[in-house]
Amino acid sequence: MAAPIPAVDIGTALEALRERTPLVQCLTNIVVAQWTANVLLAVGAAPAMVDNPHEAGQLAASAGGVLVNLGTPYDDTAAAMEQAAGAAGRAGRPWVLDPVAAGVLAWRTGIATHLLSEFSPTIVRGNASEVIALAGGAGGRGVDSTDAAETAVDVARRLAARHRTVVAVSGQVDHLTDGERLVRIANGHSWLTQVTGVGCALGAMMAGFAAVVDDPLLAAAAATATVTVAAEDAARAATGPGSFAVALLDALAGLAPDDLAARVDLP
Amino acid sequence: MAAPIPAVDIGTALEALRERTPLVQCLTNIVVAQWTANVLLAVGAAPAMVDNPHEAGQLAASAGGVLVNLGTPYDDTAAAMEQAAGAAGRAGRPWVLDPVAAGVLAWRTGIATHLLSEFSPTIVRGNASEVIALAGGAGGRGVDSTDAAETAVDVARRLAARHRTVVAVSGQVDHLTDGERLVRIANGHSWLTQVTGVGCALGAMMAGFAAVVDDPLLAAAAATATVTVAAEDAARAATGPGSFAVALLDALAGLAPDDLAARVDLP
Amino acid sequence: MAAPIPAVDIGTALEALRERTPLVQCLTNIVVAQWTANVLLAVGAAPAMVDNPHEAGQLAASAGGVLVNLGTPYDDTAAAMEQAAGAAGRAGRPWVLDPVAAGVLAWRTGIATHLLSEFSPTIVRGNASEVIALAGGAGGRGVDSTDAAETAVDVARRLAARHRTVVAVSGQVDHLTDGERLVRIANGHSWLTQVTGVGCALGAMMAGFAAVVDDPLLAAAAATATVTVAAEDAARAATGPGSFAVALLDALAGLAPDDLAARVDLP
Repeated sequence: MAAPIPAVDIGTALEALRERTPLVQCLTNIVVAQWTANVLLAVGAAPAMVDNPHEAGQLAASAGGVLVNLGTPYDDTAAAMEQAAGAAGRAGRPWVLDPVAAGVLAWRTGIATHLLSEFSPTIVRGNASEVIALAGGAGGRGVDSTDAAETAVDVARRLAARHRTVVAVSGQVDHLTDGERLVRIANGHSWLTQVTGVGCALGAMMAGFAAVVDDPLLAAAAATATVTVAAEDAARAATGPGSFAVALLDALAGLAPDDLAARVDLP
Repeated sequence: MAAPIPAVDIGTALEALRERTPLVQCLTNIVVAQWTANVLLAVGAAPAMVDNPHEAGQLAASAGGVLVNLGTPYDDTAAAMEQAAGAAGRAGRPWVLDPVAAGVLAWRTGIATHLLSEFSPTIVRGNASEVIALAGGAGGRGVDSTDAAETAVDVARRLAARHRTVVAVSGQVDHLTDGERLVRIANGHSWLTQVTGVGCALGAMMAGFAAVVDDPLLAAAAATATVTVAAEDAARAATGPGSFAVALLDALAGLAPDDLAARVDLP
Repeated sequence: MAAPIPAVDIGTALEALRERTPLVQCLTNIVVAQWTANVLLAVGAAPAMVDNPHEAGQLAASAGGVLVNLGTPYDDTAAAMEQAAGAAGRAGRPWVLDPVAAGVLAWRTGIATHLLSEFSPTIVRGNASEVIALAGGAGGRGVDSTDAAETAVDVARRLAARHRTVVAVSGQVDHLTDGERLVRIANGHSWLTQVTGVGCALGAMMAGFAAVVDDPLLAAAAATATVTVAAEDAARAATGPGSFAVALLDALAGLAPDDLAARVDLP
């Protein structure tokens, strides 16, 4: 059986990202804004953190890709998210929804559900708890995932089919599905969970890859593979979570597309 | 005379934090949000930066501990702080007040004074100037402390007794008091003052420790000891304030409870 | 012909900054607030990130220098910027305008143009696209500069003369002018463009130098020289953009004034 996403295509996607340097508009949280911008710069994209309601729609209509991350929503940034998602949808620009802590906190769960049903994100990225909560199940403890990614796979598949989107479930093994195809990626390192915002930055990378490849499942897989393979390089250069985060930026900048294709683990 | 807080209890507190991974809700400033989350992850707690008025009270009622830090207040986050402090108090959850720049700027000084008198924080953490300002004295220059920590000890003791709280005064030697007992901690390194947000992250750590030990003075002391002992390790691995901050995260993650108990300097 | 700014004066300016530790109030964006504070601490200034409309004017009237950076404006921070710029102007405090993404996004371009014409910034810092947009020309792609710095020099000179300000145009070679004198600085490293917020932090440094020297062109040149010479040291210690950013903080803290004066490249 052929793999749903060939490893060689993942390498080619990274090459395309570096060549085209897509503008990725991020409406993200105050915790990870700097980290996300530095991750995008390191991997080869161009970040633009525009999240006020006066400008978010204007930029989203022409951005390469858009990230909407619900980590620290406020009234004005939530309004901006609605405008950005709407403008991206109307203009045919890919956009990624990261429903941080959906299922734990009522207000943002409502925002996430509304954005999902009204504006058809290209990709939804979360941990198992968040994906289950978005699908209407009981949520977990917030940014920690209390459900194993494996158990969320069926939920993710149905959610993807119903909303015609790709759902990417982060975990020790990452699971990504468009409702039919299922990709598993088994790279990574435990220090990824000790650095805030790795998942948030992964969502931004997915928006960047979606700007340069046509298949959203490939975009989500290429972003996941890139950060998890780079993490393995970073872990070798680090002595703890602080130096690991620094080394991850170096590794993202230095990762060769051929090397990525050779090392991505698609079980 | 027995020490008010035995060193062995400080080691045991770190062990408890690592075992229980308390959820620490942070309502903090835009400058240090990422750093604070990474410090909490490194030391073994679980950060949740929820600071909007739609959700702050909901989470505070069930969080392990709550930090309210006045570094960059806005109308909406100030409203969230009021709700979080109130909900934490009603639910019996420990919460920490960090009155950044109290005494320098009128609006936030009013907020800090109001939160202190209405909602009885478990711990108040600040530098000498901020503590003196909270007690009604003249303030200093903001985040720099222009009063030596020593001179603020009497003020801190009275403030703690009046509000039935613990007051932790940061300085070259840290002074912590519950109005009766006084703890001095003499670890640390001068580079701690050249990294933004170390004090802010210390407040978050205090909220984490207060979630796992019953004595708030021990919680404040354990947090202070952990970051100042780790700083001594980090300084040996660093060549300037940039690499020191990175090494501090590594050192926090690697610090063994026994080692902490053996090295904390309680003069 | 004598150089418009002698290298020795740049070294002396750094010495003055270290001796006087000016308070630099930053009204900046959520992406770079931590990085900017750490850069200011490393170089020897005292950051104060106060950007709410209740307090911004109060502090600006007494700050050493003020930065207004339009990276992520919101209604409340935009109101604070207006108050800070006004209060700085009335009190004779130097202030720096960084019109991030002017020309790309309509709302902030209006804010930048208004602040420029109403409150006479001491220094305007941007890339070529932003400077051309401020002068009324067509803008570029946001934080990327699509116009070479060289081509913006004539525009910068006219803009500086019209508004009696200093205009600093960042690029591979930096160009700074007060409308008559023109300074070129040719230090730096390509990794500076792969770390978010270096330009934003440079604006904050300019506000710090403007607090300790009388000539705003010297202040802008000293800040530019300090960060670009330090970047050359940092690049030697780094293996990618992540470790470069860390090493840049170390290098800023360690740079000797004499060394700066000897190495600044003023072609």
